[in-house]
Amino acid sequence: MEQSVKGRLLDGYDRTHDRNGVSGERLATLASVGKTEDGGVDRPGFSEEEKRAKQQVVEWMRGAGMDVRMDGAGNVIGRLNGEAGGPAFVTGSHLDSVPNGGNFDGPLGVLSSLEMVEAWRETGYVPPVPVEVVVFSEEEGSRFGAGVMGSRAMTGKIGDGELDGLMDFAGRTFREVIGTYGSTPEEFLAAARRPDEIGFYTELHIEQGKLLEQADLPAGIVKGIAGLAGLHIVFRGEAGHAGNTPMIGRRDPLVAAGRFVHDVSTLPSEIGDTAVATVGKLTVSPNGSNVIPGQVELTVDIRDLDKEKRDALVLKVRETAERCAEEQDAEIAISQLSSVDPAPVSDEIRDELRDVFMEEGIEPMELMSGAGHDAMNFAPMAMIFVRSQGGISHNPAEWTDLSDCVMGVHLLKRFAERRMEKMARANED
Amino acid sequence: MEQSVKGRLLDGYDRTHDRNGVSGERLATLASVGKTEDGGVDRPGFSEEEKRAKQQVVEWMRGAGMDVRMDGAGNVIGRLNGEAGGPAFVTGSHLDSVPNGGNFDGPLGVLSSLEMVEAWRETGYVPPVPVEVVVFSEEEGSRFGAGVMGSRAMTGKIGDGELDGLMDFAGRTFREVIGTYGSTPEEFLAAARRPDEIGFYTELHIEQGKLLEQADLPAGIVKGIAGLAGLHIVFRGEAGHAGNTPMIGRRDPLVAAGRFVHDVSTLPSEIGDTAVATVGKLTVSPNGSNVIPGQVELTVDIRDLDKEKRDALVLKVRETAERCAEEQDAEIAISQLSSVDPAPVSDEIRDELRDVFMEEGIEPMELMSGAGHDAMNFAPMAMIFVRSQGGISHNPAEWTDLSDCVMGVHLLKRFAERRMEKMARANED
Repeated sequence: MEQSVKGRLLDGYDRTHDRNGVSGERLATLASVGKTEDGGVDRPGFSEEEKRAKQQVVEWMRGAGMDVRMDGAGNVIGRLNGEAGGPAFVTGSHLDSVPNGGNFDGPLGVLSSLEMVEAWRETGYVPPVPVEVVVFSEEEGSRFGAGVMGSRAMTGKIGDGELDGLMDFAGRTFREVIGTYGSTPEEFLAAARRPDEIGFYTELHIEQGKLLEQADLPAGIVKGIAGLAGLHIVFRGEAGHAGNTPMIGRRDPLVAAGRFVHDVSTLPSEIGDTAVATVGKLTVSPNGSNVIPGQVELTVDIRDLDKEKRDALVLKVRETAERCAEEQDAEIAISQLSSVDPAPVSDEIRDELRDVFMEEGIEPMELMSGAGHDAMNFAPMAMIFVRSQGGISHNPAEWTDLSDCVMGVHLLKRFAERRMEKMARANED
Repeated sequence: MEQSVKGRLLDGYDRTHDRNGVSGERLATLASVGKTEDGGVDRPGFSEEEKRAKQQVVEWMRGAGMDVRMDGAGNVIGRLNGEAGGPAFVTGSHLDSVPNGGNFDGPLGVLSSLEMVEAWRETGYVPPVPVEVVVFSEEEGSRFGAGVMGSRAMTGKIGDGELDGLMDFAGRTFREVIGTYGSTPEEFLAAARRPDEIGFYTELHIEQGKLLEQADLPAGIVKGIAGLAGLHIVFRGEAGHAGNTPMIGRRDPLVAAGRFVHDVSTLPSEIGDTAVATVGKLTVSPNGSNVIPGQVELTVDIRDLDKEKRDALVLKVRETAERCAEEQDAEIAISQLSSVDPAPVSDEIRDELRDVFMEEGIEPMELMSGAGHDAMNFAPMAMIFVRSQGGISHNPAEWTDLSDCVMGVHLLKRFAERRMEKMARANED
């Protein structure tokens, strides 16, 4: 697989775009850290593998002339001084993965930032403001079920007492796990930075969807990160023998849940184009072929770019669940699992991105990020998506051609330079 | 629990019905063979526990003056000669259980037959035709997933090659398992008897439903055993990220399956009062809260007393599945798991049962057996159901008051005596 990650990357590389480049070698090197049999990676947050991948990047950062430090949250911060001081232009992503995850989700954002810095070094360009390339810890939430931990630590968004309750997949507390990182929960929280240290955040990431592929575009402009509300719903009825219980008088929670799942799929279009609602997880008890179910448990994943619309959709989903339960005389319990506010990208930034895309000869397509990213903890921020083959992600088959990776670096670099100029001008005013 | 099965049985015993009785002691003795922590029993077909329970019954049969033999299928046959020869009046049930099953499903039919024989012995009654009390092997299908094996062996209804393909829960072949019973597949098949050996079959069983309880009646007349058709349906769509996949263009197999489960529940009423259709088992893949499912597998259990209506319902279910798949642009694969023909009880026999019930002062309520029983392999046949508390069955909480058990014996005995007289008269003609 070492061969093939590198081989496939270079095979697919359209050399007409070879100006700054992105290193297929480096992607392949990171792919070898925590490599799985399927050619994916296992690099849970705060694992030995995540740490090794970060150390590799630290070396590369130093080689690119950056000052590097690690904060109490395990975030790696490579800094390049600018012509002037002031709030930094920050760019980065993460190196942790879901179990048996892909080789692009996270690493691409880190490596493209690094390539940009190296390109500046080669051309003698000195950024007008300080630049930081950051590798955030534990973005995926695979370790504690809590995601974007490093970026939340840096932006002071870890909730009170949140760390106390965490337990990882092996039953270890947060204090134990972060101890192996040479840190403590107190130092973790102390990673929070003053808002005026960070002027702008940018992240390049694979799309993890198929819209760019369908539009035949190498990259796109993220117009915002959707806000997620998760609901957990339990329908309870009365189990019974499938043969000996007449249809009349049944209280079948799967009939209620079935109608609910279907009806939920019709609700987002009542709200808007970007709203989505999905029942992905559903468990039937006792789940016997000749037993009327007694209980059905399910989750609903509800997202939109607009918080009010998202909340309106949550309300519709709840009402639908209650109606479906009532129809079958089933009991229902609804609990909110999580709620994350949407993170929109401002009109001004989207205008800048559109200019940058057009200058690179790419039609500026805007799309929503349905998935969460470290970027959602920063404001103002920008995100650039690059095309994912088949939209496959969180899977060893995740793939982005090197040509698209390289185009991503060009877009990132062009945008960064323009944005920093504006930051510098704003600092002077 | 030994205490409580016996204690509860005797506590609930209404002594006004104490004519022949049924032995609470014996029910408690059988409850101790394969007893589980919850007070239920684990007696899989062809297990050591099933064998020990049979051996206990063999002793009781011998004590009641019967000639006892075991056939190649492990069926225990206790025979009492009648005034004349000819086809036997056969009555019985089974002693195997589902995992952690109840104490009445099966044992009650065996013990009530035994009580009847003992009552005859005490009163000096000699039946006009031979009587056989039978304990059938492996009724529940817990061992090989194939039920009513003993009664099918006796009636020559084991399909060609069926035994070759069987594999039990521990991966053992039928030959290995039946070997521990001291038999072989060849001897198992040789258990088939000539049709003229069996003149009539009767079985007393708990209802495993709530209709008698709802009607406040201790027992009821089975008008037939529903025919079961099982379907296995797989809906296949396209998995994707719940956040990054727009609603338009999704091919969500759970949305298809959800509508299907709901719509199936509305179909039986289009067919008739006794038809039922149930989705009891449904499994979602990959079953992640933020992943649009890629596949949903489910089973449909379809039953009716009338074969044509049952088959019409199967057709409606198939059409509904195809329509629901098409709506979501999902692929579908439907396979028939099993099909058992309904076993109706003849009008003549139901008339006799009604007379018997009225003579015992019980309103003759007729009900369908939605579950399969050994009785369905015999014709002509009769079944008497006794009331189940809360309709609970296949569960340690399965319960029937001793008064109802005793009433069952009275009904069985009165019916047997009347039926045997008619059999004897028919033999003379």
